[in-house]
Amino acid sequence: MKISAIVTLKENVLDPQGKVVNQTLKNMGYSNITEVRQGKYFEIQLNENNKEKAKKIIDEICKKLLSNTIIEDYTINIKQ
Amino acid sequence: MKISAIVTLKENVLDPQGKVVNQTLKNMGYSNITEVRQGKYFEIQLNENNKEKAKKIIDEICKKLLSNTIIEDYTINIKQ
Repeated sequence: MKISAIVTLKENVLDPQGKVVNQTLKNMGYSNITEVRQGKYFEIQLNENNKEKAKKIIDEICKKLLSNTIIEDYTINIKQ
Repeated sequence: MKISAIVTLKENVLDPQGKVVNQTLKNMGYSNITEVRQGKYFEIQLNENNKEKAKKIIDEICKKLLSNTIIEDYTINIKQ
């Protein structure tokens, strides 16, 4: 099963990388871009046919390794 | 309008970051994880109400700034 996880900084946490991209786009002439926030994307392939079990494993992995839950949020999507 | 862009390495391009995450998960005991690939996630807020126009702008931005199309693919999703 293929599952994706997206890890983003929480809304109230400063995102310098996103700000740099935003400023660069403005400098390139894209004046209608108002905000950019950057995050991490993970595509995980795992041997587990039960959707619920797979989701539980990825949730655990997100909490333990892929995200810092103090400053980051994550969302999980089953892809296939 | 809020649009997300996900930039990932092409299938045939080596992904050392993903490999490190994969190995770490194996070391943590997650033996059923077979592959991890890492990518970048961007959430872009832009002043444009026309979905097609917005998508075209983000497509341009992905090509020009957010991705290296020689080794990376990108996908665009309109969020709201």
